[in-house]
Amino acid sequence: MFTNIEHIGIAVRDLAASSELFATLLNRESYKSEEVASEGVLTAFFLVNQTKIELLAATRPDSAIATFIEKRGEGTHHIAFEVDDIVAEMARLKEAGFTLLNEVPKRGADNKLVCFVHPKTANGVLVELCQEMKRVQGSTSKV
Amino acid sequence: MFTNIEHIGIAVRDLAASSELFATLLNRESYKSEEVASEGVLTAFFLVNQTKIELLAATRPDSAIATFIEKRGEGTHHIAFEVDDIVAEMARLKEAGFTLLNEVPKRGADNKLVCFVHPKTANGVLVELCQEMKRVQGSTSKV
Repeated sequence: MFTNIEHIGIAVRDLAASSELFATLLNRESYKSEEVASEGVLTAFFLVNQTKIELLAATRPDSAIATFIEKRGEGTHHIAFEVDDIVAEMARLKEAGFTLLNEVPKRGADNKLVCFVHPKTANGVLVELCQEMKRVQGSTSKV
Repeated sequence: MFTNIEHIGIAVRDLAASSELFATLLNRESYKSEEVASEGVLTAFFLVNQTKIELLAATRPDSAIATFIEKRGEGTHHIAFEVDDIVAEMARLKEAGFTLLNEVPKRGADNKLVCFVHPKTANGVLVELCQEMKRVQGSTSKV
């Protein structure tokens, strides 16, 4: 089940400058910054009620964020939905014809297991499914 | 204050087809459809916890949604934040250097007063501020 919009990912060129901009816009400070080395991104998080704004800056030219910004400029990059069972949701969506960008859940930022759905099959929206790591252990110990 | 991410607006070409797609993706039905004649858009809403997904299709070629899709294709169009005092937030953001697309709140979909912030001043993100109509009356009866 899709239980929440966990975060909205926004591609930015300069994390420090954009963190300052979003701190002003939202009138609150970023509560966390994190590097996801495997994806070549540096992130900064802001919380608005139960949903995070996740700023994403590339740390390498081959990062997906660098490619995105080169093609489309800065802006909304993806929408991440919290799910209660990522393995079950991935199976359900695959069966329904959505193209998954990874066949098994992978580790994302913020202690999550994640899977991306190809935007071509989701109205141009890059959709992320995510589930807190601790909530998956046990049922999917092989992941 | 920014109190919630009220909705995420997604530009789509064909509202019926995209409603079906998002109903499958989110595994729930759209709970409302509404035409905003002044903006030339037809909308369909899905609820995920406390945030709505708002699909937006153009009803006229000069609609902002038609222009957006022509330039960038389908995809995420804007992020709307619920605020507790739209007039105060508009003043605060203007003072901080953000460009507002309307100088006074205007009527949006879903019984809201809304204001848009130019994406050029917000990292490429079209930001909407919105406030439930009933909560504004009294303090802003001239709006």
